[in-house]
Amino acid sequence: MKIHEAIGFIDSGVGGLTVVKEALRQLPNERLIYLGDTARCPYGPRPAEQVIEFTWEMTNFLLEKNIKMLVIACNTATAVALEEIKAKLDIPVVGVIMPGTRAALKATKNSHIGIIGTVGTIKSRAYEEALLSKAPKTFVSSLACPKFVPIVESNEFHSSVAKKVVSETLNPLQLKNLDTLVLGCTHYPLLRPLIQNVMGDQVKLIDSGAETVSEVSMLLDYFDIANTPQHQNEPNEFYTTGSAKMFHSIANDWLDIEVLNVEQVRLSTKTCGGR
Amino acid sequence: MKIHEAIGFIDSGVGGLTVVKEALRQLPNERLIYLGDTARCPYGPRPAEQVIEFTWEMTNFLLEKNIKMLVIACNTATAVALEEIKAKLDIPVVGVIMPGTRAALKATKNSHIGIIGTVGTIKSRAYEEALLSKAPKTFVSSLACPKFVPIVESNEFHSSVAKKVVSETLNPLQLKNLDTLVLGCTHYPLLRPLIQNVMGDQVKLIDSGAETVSEVSMLLDYFDIANTPQHQNEPNEFYTTGSAKMFHSIANDWLDIEVLNVEQVRLSTKTCGGR
Repeated sequence: MKIHEAIGFIDSGVGGLTVVKEALRQLPNERLIYLGDTARCPYGPRPAEQVIEFTWEMTNFLLEKNIKMLVIACNTATAVALEEIKAKLDIPVVGVIMPGTRAALKATKNSHIGIIGTVGTIKSRAYEEALLSKAPKTFVSSLACPKFVPIVESNEFHSSVAKKVVSETLNPLQLKNLDTLVLGCTHYPLLRPLIQNVMGDQVKLIDSGAETVSEVSMLLDYFDIANTPQHQNEPNEFYTTGSAKMFHSIANDWLDIEVLNVEQVRLSTKTCGGR
Repeated sequence: MKIHEAIGFIDSGVGGLTVVKEALRQLPNERLIYLGDTARCPYGPRPAEQVIEFTWEMTNFLLEKNIKMLVIACNTATAVALEEIKAKLDIPVVGVIMPGTRAALKATKNSHIGIIGTVGTIKSRAYEEALLSKAPKTFVSSLACPKFVPIVESNEFHSSVAKKVVSETLNPLQLKNLDTLVLGCTHYPLLRPLIQNVMGDQVKLIDSGAETVSEVSMLLDYFDIANTPQHQNEPNEFYTTGSAKMFHSIANDWLDIEVLNVEQVRLSTKTCGGR
C-alpha cells in the first residue's frame, strides 16, 4: 500500500538534511529516503540545463525505490526543475521556494524582504517573481552567496573562516532596511547563528526547508497517503554520491540522531565534475 | 482562466464566515463566494445522510458559479461529506478537520487534547480518529455543545446567557488536564473570549477554520491556481438561505468589513426544516 512507502528527498549535497531534520520532528510516522549529490555539489554555479539533468538523475534513482512523494530539498534544483518534474511524475512533488515565499510574506511587517541563495537560485529570480506575484509592493533584495555551500559541505561551518565569509558576504544587505531574510538554500540554516548575528535580531530568518515540511504534512493528508504509527517502518535510508564518511559525520552533527545506512552510490556513467 | 475564478465556501450558517475572515486576511488577491444554509441550520443534530444531501445542494449551487476550489467551512459537513465530495469533484476540496488536527498536535505539550463540536461532529469521531491515527498516545476528550450554534446564529454571542451556557457546557472538560482545545465548529471562534475565560489561559484554543486557510493557500500554489493582484477582481459574493438582513448584520460585526451583495437564495424545492 502506498501510504507505507517512503518520502524521497533530494539535494545537491547535505543541505537537504536540514529539511529532513524538520521532517523527522514533524512527521515521526514517515519513512524517509535521502539522496545528496555531494560529488557534483555545488549546483549553484552550474547552468540550468545541467541542474535539470542532475535533478532528473536523482529523481529516477528515488523513483526506483517506490517513493510516494518527492521533496526537492534544494532551492537551486527547485528553481529550474520543479515545474518539469512535477508535470511528469504521478506522485506529489514539492519544492522549497513557494513555502519560503509564503512564510516570508506572513512574517514581514515593512515589506522589505531579503533573499540569499546560490548563484543559480538568485539568477532564476524564482523567489523574486513568486513574492511580487503575490504582493507587488514588496521590496525584494536578492544576494547570491556562492561561498556558503562549500563552507557547509566541507564541515567548516563552525570555523572562524565561516564567520568572516558570512559577515563580508552579507554586507550589501545591511542598509536595505530588511525585517525578513529568506535562507533560500537548504545549506544555510547551518550558518544560521552567524547569519543572525550579522543581520541583527530585528531581522526574522525564514528557513524555507522547515516551512516545506508543513506543506509535505498537508499534502500527505490531502492525498490521503500519510503513514500511521501502527505500521512498523523500515529504517530511513541515506545515499550520497560523495564520501559516505563525510556525509555521515555532518548528518550526525546536524540531525542530532544516529544516521544509519549511509551508502555511496553512482548516479550516472558520466565523470563527476566535483567542484 | 481558472486562476481568476473564485474560491467557494459553504457552511450550515454564518460560522464559516470565521474562515472567510481569515481568508480575506491571508489571501487578499482571491475572490470569495460564500453560501450559508441558515434556513436549515443547525446541521449538528441532523442525521448524516441529510447533512450529506444538504452539503451536495450547497456544493452544486457554487459549482454553477465556476468556483476553482471548494472549502467545506463546516465541521459537521466535513465529518460526513468531505470524502465523497472530494472524490467526485475535479476541483480541490478542503475540509476543516485535518488542519485542526495538525494544529492541535503541533500545539500540545502534554498530549491531552479536547475537542468541542456539534453532536454530528462529535458522533462522527472524525477528530478523535484523525488525532489517534497520527499520535496514538494522545488523550482525547470530546464534548458536544449543541447550544453554541443557536446562540451564535441568533447573534446573542455577547449576551449574559451566552456566558452562562458556555460556562455550564464546558464544565465536564475542567478536570481533564487539557493544554489544547480544538474549536471543532466554525461558529465557535465567535464565542472564543467566553471559552478562553472558562478554560483558563493555560489552554491553547485551536481555530480549525483559520488553520484551514493556510491549507487553502498552499493548495492554490500547489495546483498553480492562485490569483494575482494584477487582475482586477469582481467583488466577493455572499448568499444565505435565511434572512439576508440577519446574515448581513452578523457578517459585518464579525468580518469587520463591509459585506455587500448578501442575497437570499433557495437551494431546493423541499420544505426547509428550520430548527
